[in-house]
Amino acid sequence: MSDLPMEPLPLLQDLPPCQRWAVKLEYDGTGLVGWQRQASGLSVQALLEEAATRMAGGRRVSSITAGRTDSGVHATGQVAHLDFPADMPLLPYRVRDGLSYHLKPHAVAVLEAAPVGLDWSARFSATWRSYRYRILNRPTRPALATNHVWHLRSPLDIDLMQEGANHLIGSHDFTSFRAVACQARSPFRTLDILTVERHGDEVWIIAKARSFLHHQVRNMVGTLSLVGQKRWKPERIAQALEAKSRCAAGPTAPPEGLYLTGVGYEPDPFS
Amino acid sequence: MSDLPMEPLPLLQDLPPCQRWAVKLEYDGTGLVGWQRQASGLSVQALLEEAATRMAGGRRVSSITAGRTDSGVHATGQVAHLDFPADMPLLPYRVRDGLSYHLKPHAVAVLEAAPVGLDWSARFSATWRSYRYRILNRPTRPALATNHVWHLRSPLDIDLMQEGANHLIGSHDFTSFRAVACQARSPFRTLDILTVERHGDEVWIIAKARSFLHHQVRNMVGTLSLVGQKRWKPERIAQALEAKSRCAAGPTAPPEGLYLTGVGYEPDPFS
Repeated sequence: MSDLPMEPLPLLQDLPPCQRWAVKLEYDGTGLVGWQRQASGLSVQALLEEAATRMAGGRRVSSITAGRTDSGVHATGQVAHLDFPADMPLLPYRVRDGLSYHLKPHAVAVLEAAPVGLDWSARFSATWRSYRYRILNRPTRPALATNHVWHLRSPLDIDLMQEGANHLIGSHDFTSFRAVACQARSPFRTLDILTVERHGDEVWIIAKARSFLHHQVRNMVGTLSLVGQKRWKPERIAQALEAKSRCAAGPTAPPEGLYLTGVGYEPDPFS
Repeated sequence: MSDLPMEPLPLLQDLPPCQRWAVKLEYDGTGLVGWQRQASGLSVQALLEEAATRMAGGRRVSSITAGRTDSGVHATGQVAHLDFPADMPLLPYRVRDGLSYHLKPHAVAVLEAAPVGLDWSARFSATWRSYRYRILNRPTRPALATNHVWHLRSPLDIDLMQEGANHLIGSHDFTSFRAVACQARSPFRTLDILTVERHGDEVWIIAKARSFLHHQVRNMVGTLSLVGQKRWKPERIAQALEAKSRCAAGPTAPPEGLYLTGVGYEPDPFS
């Protein structure tokens, strides 16, 4: 909220009433600086808030997201909430289509919209987040999926990768798999799902947890890629976890293979 | 071969010996003018022949393809053949990687390469071609698959579409479903497979035949979309076929949803 004018804050009863909307988003992270507003470059947040502000006739609408994706990361099921002025009698399809219209020509679109209470938060009400990481595992570089997969030439053994991944499932101190700059208070997380699947030329890594640390999925994928290439034995994943040091794990996989595929709520506002 | 210099043709025994290579290609048709060389714009043919010519140290290498895709149409399994000078002792992976290297930065890549005899033709030896047509069937425009799907907002009934498609399977005069400019001698074709499938938000139409007429897949898809939207009853497909007039069938679906997915040979040079 640092971009609000420097005026005395209004009292709560003086604030105009608003209607909160949950929105489900798809976006292509290529060329975007990620979710969060930056000093320069296009962010999903700025594009979404600008679209909402236009719908609200210039009255500023701010947003909160379930997951602040990094630059180059994609989403098929990101969720955010927006507080629209309450005097706008909106229908769900009008919020969805209006925002998608004002988001043109950018590669960001609203798939669903639903009214929620002011106590509902896209971030704090979320009970899980799910990600898919796509590796194109073949000798030839991508022609159709450029910027949408991580290309690894050497064949990956997905059974070994799954064996390594199994060491990460459950509740652990994930210090070895969080970005050094990660600002989360606790390094403990509970990983519910970490599955390695082959789909033709692609290897997908599916991850699901209540929440993730910064770069956690990309660090797990980068480390599992060493196991898949037989440069690491699966057991070394357990040792890396125990070391509680970022240096003990493998490299960070690039952003372009990562997709935020869904965010869960109980109850689901979109159902 | 219109770009050969205007000199007397050499006798066959004077032609340098060559080694023919079959290559399997993936490409993103966005921004390309299609397979065939045009007066202006980038074609897959020109890019591939230029890459091969560079590999051959400047000696011109020409190509023949299994299917001349239109501008905007994609391929995941296009096949072509190239005649390299026989004094180049090439290995399959070197042809694949060398061509892919010289095709950079264009969205065209070689997936496989195999040596074949001079009596083998990517076009005339093919025993089938297969296509996939992707329709994104949801209210919201694509953010991730822009230029890679046909976006249709109104819900499609795939059971009705399949009922309509069944009228097209088999041997027919496909005059109603060929481009008016189609230059094939006969309008008769035998359609082996025409299947309508739903995959989440997408509807896929899969087609397989020995060969197709110009725009045949896109005209079948455009017509089936009317059935899916309940603007046509499935039986009207049979009437359109019987009419033997392009005016009797539906519109041509746009190129960006179409993928040439495979070409069959017996035996398969890549197996």
